[in-house]
Amino acid sequence: MAVGAGITEPLLPVSGISLGVTCAGIKKVGRRDLTVIELTPGSTVGAVFTKNAFCAAPVTVCKQHLAETNDIRLLVINTGNANAGTGKQGLEDAMETCTRLAAKRSVDVNQVLPFSTGVIGEYLPMTAISNGLPNALEALAVDNWMDAAQGIMTTDTRPKGATRQFEFEGETITVTGISKGSGMIRPNMATMLAFVATDAKVPAGLLQKITTEATESSFNRITVDSDTSTNDACVLMATGQSNASAVVDEADPLYQQLLSTVKDVMLSLAHQIIRDGEGANKFIEVKVEGAVDRAEALKVAYSVADSPLFKTAMSASDANWGRILMAVGKSGVENLDVDQIDVYLGDVQIVDEGQRAPGYTEEQGTKAVSGEEINVRICLARGEVTESVWTSDLSYEYVRINAEYRS
Amino acid sequence: MAVGAGITEPLLPVSGISLGVTCAGIKKVGRRDLTVIELTPGSTVGAVFTKNAFCAAPVTVCKQHLAETNDIRLLVINTGNANAGTGKQGLEDAMETCTRLAAKRSVDVNQVLPFSTGVIGEYLPMTAISNGLPNALEALAVDNWMDAAQGIMTTDTRPKGATRQFEFEGETITVTGISKGSGMIRPNMATMLAFVATDAKVPAGLLQKITTEATESSFNRITVDSDTSTNDACVLMATGQSNASAVVDEADPLYQQLLSTVKDVMLSLAHQIIRDGEGANKFIEVKVEGAVDRAEALKVAYSVADSPLFKTAMSASDANWGRILMAVGKSGVENLDVDQIDVYLGDVQIVDEGQRAPGYTEEQGTKAVSGEEINVRICLARGEVTESVWTSDLSYEYVRINAEYRS
Repeated sequence: MAVGAGITEPLLPVSGISLGVTCAGIKKVGRRDLTVIELTPGSTVGAVFTKNAFCAAPVTVCKQHLAETNDIRLLVINTGNANAGTGKQGLEDAMETCTRLAAKRSVDVNQVLPFSTGVIGEYLPMTAISNGLPNALEALAVDNWMDAAQGIMTTDTRPKGATRQFEFEGETITVTGISKGSGMIRPNMATMLAFVATDAKVPAGLLQKITTEATESSFNRITVDSDTSTNDACVLMATGQSNASAVVDEADPLYQQLLSTVKDVMLSLAHQIIRDGEGANKFIEVKVEGAVDRAEALKVAYSVADSPLFKTAMSASDANWGRILMAVGKSGVENLDVDQIDVYLGDVQIVDEGQRAPGYTEEQGTKAVSGEEINVRICLARGEVTESVWTSDLSYEYVRINAEYRS
Repeated sequence: MAVGAGITEPLLPVSGISLGVTCAGIKKVGRRDLTVIELTPGSTVGAVFTKNAFCAAPVTVCKQHLAETNDIRLLVINTGNANAGTGKQGLEDAMETCTRLAAKRSVDVNQVLPFSTGVIGEYLPMTAISNGLPNALEALAVDNWMDAAQGIMTTDTRPKGATRQFEFEGETITVTGISKGSGMIRPNMATMLAFVATDAKVPAGLLQKITTEATESSFNRITVDSDTSTNDACVLMATGQSNASAVVDEADPLYQQLLSTVKDVMLSLAHQIIRDGEGANKFIEVKVEGAVDRAEALKVAYSVADSPLFKTAMSASDANWGRILMAVGKSGVENLDVDQIDVYLGDVQIVDEGQRAPGYTEEQGTKAVSGEEINVRICLARGEVTESVWTSDLSYEYVRINAEYRS
């Protein structure tokens, strides 16, 4: 049910990052469900987490550890169990996972960040995790990115990864990342996790800036069903193992080039999530032009991208311009003049100043939305700001997966 | 696919209100699609309309006429065509409909209110409407409420109506209403229309207050898919034909009794819309208790009621408490402490202070959501305010209706 082809590019190693994956039997026997990522000493990390008030225990522990130190050495990710809605016991389990891993590598407990995705409201199977950790550590290798991409999958139908390189002052800088989502495990919700690394040398403060800005323009621009997970997390790691000099400040050309490349990797990962969205048959860009500011552009874009009526129409390859205008109209933008709005599907203008465009035929519209890739462009004619968000269609399959995934 | 039984009660006439329905052939031959409601001289009206910025031509004309006069004498409602996205021509057509009807009854054009529901972006078939008006007028009768309930249906599977009476100082006051929604006509969106009348005598200002307040607690408390129509309208008419004295002010006991009865009728009509919601197999109340204020209670309630993951779980009779907590958590309430939250499904406590309730079994939960009627109660423990909203589940059938309704 995924849209387009999966990744075919090899995921390039990032010097200073090793990854190990094992089958710990957390939920199912023989499934790769426990991943460890080790960072070389001196690495820095940036991270963003779910804004859901109901956040999972590992998210709380991650935030706590990052508040204490940026000298992170290990990430541990389990699937099959979200460790959410598990209260005090959940926090203890997340912490205990870190403690056990820290002991095996002789680092402090707060140098370990835990991540979980899977069933809500069940306690972590600590014995399985504890038994799995040595195997994951034994498997550590620099060229395991694809294994790790598979190791963090839940109901994803395919692994998600992206890799880029650029030259800076004669040195090659690599950025490689993996992500998962929007999978679902009974009785649970979608979770997005992403882990991206570079061998550039970046002070922690600047790395956090890059993480926040790149996340904002990638993972924060996608929506499958408007629901926000309790476990969402995105981590950017910088090992400093390349021979390029350290990033100095935001004006540094290396900062700009790295930011641009990280954005590119994260946007690719975000798009892969949408292409593998639950029940997705369509990959849809909703671009809003001519907004007064970014907030307004996003308000309109999300109002369309999250509208069930718009998404079901796209699922049926129905160029339903009335539903697009309806969704624009309900977005809550003040003093919106619908008689100024133009709408395009691909190259076809379907709405001209709030009405069906002259000469537009339904055949043209149907053709514009019949493929797997759909571009909706909404011109508000109020200002100069353009923003895009990406979404999938709302299909039978989405309902089936989320209503009946009880196995 | 509707939930529970349809209306069986007879809809009582309201003295001073006549209704006439005809088949004008607006979209299909032989379908009742044109309804006229005539108010006796001296009646007052209150009205609320869609907040969608992309509002249909008849909504604009209604607002204009009501700004000029409250001495409304006729309502004209067509199905099959929403007269939305039709620009200047649409406004002229809506006005022309009023002009023709006004001429036939020798009233001013601004004493007529027009309503449309159906296809977006097509011009009104003025010849069909013009030819239909005399037939609708000829059919006018006081006991035609059920005919009118059928006459305003689009893809509704059954007519919606409610009727109540109460005694005040020895006089009987009647409140009767009809509504339609959430039907769909290619290539179009849901539209809610409601027309409620009473024979009480109520000054226009007070009647508008009753309309606004009763709408707020009924039609503004339901959601099928979070999408807002361009054509939504609710009109409350008061003919003053009962022998009770006129309502004096808000402190008047008659005001209070009438408000309560109108609320009751509108809530019944609103619930009937949800029970007949597209693809609905479940009628779901989401009640939020212990909120700081009404806005907070509604924010949480709608976050749950509009969550696709919650709605698909309900469709599958899956007591998925993780999705409920997720939806509460993403509602955007500031400083929400999830460790204070309790959740009940019917009488079964499923969440106790943010975790699975002790002793709760999945069997209990499944039983609580396996019927057609589901009650979700969320206790925030932050304040004293309680609010409810009502919704339906998200089923295959919803997707089928909205993706494939192309006939």
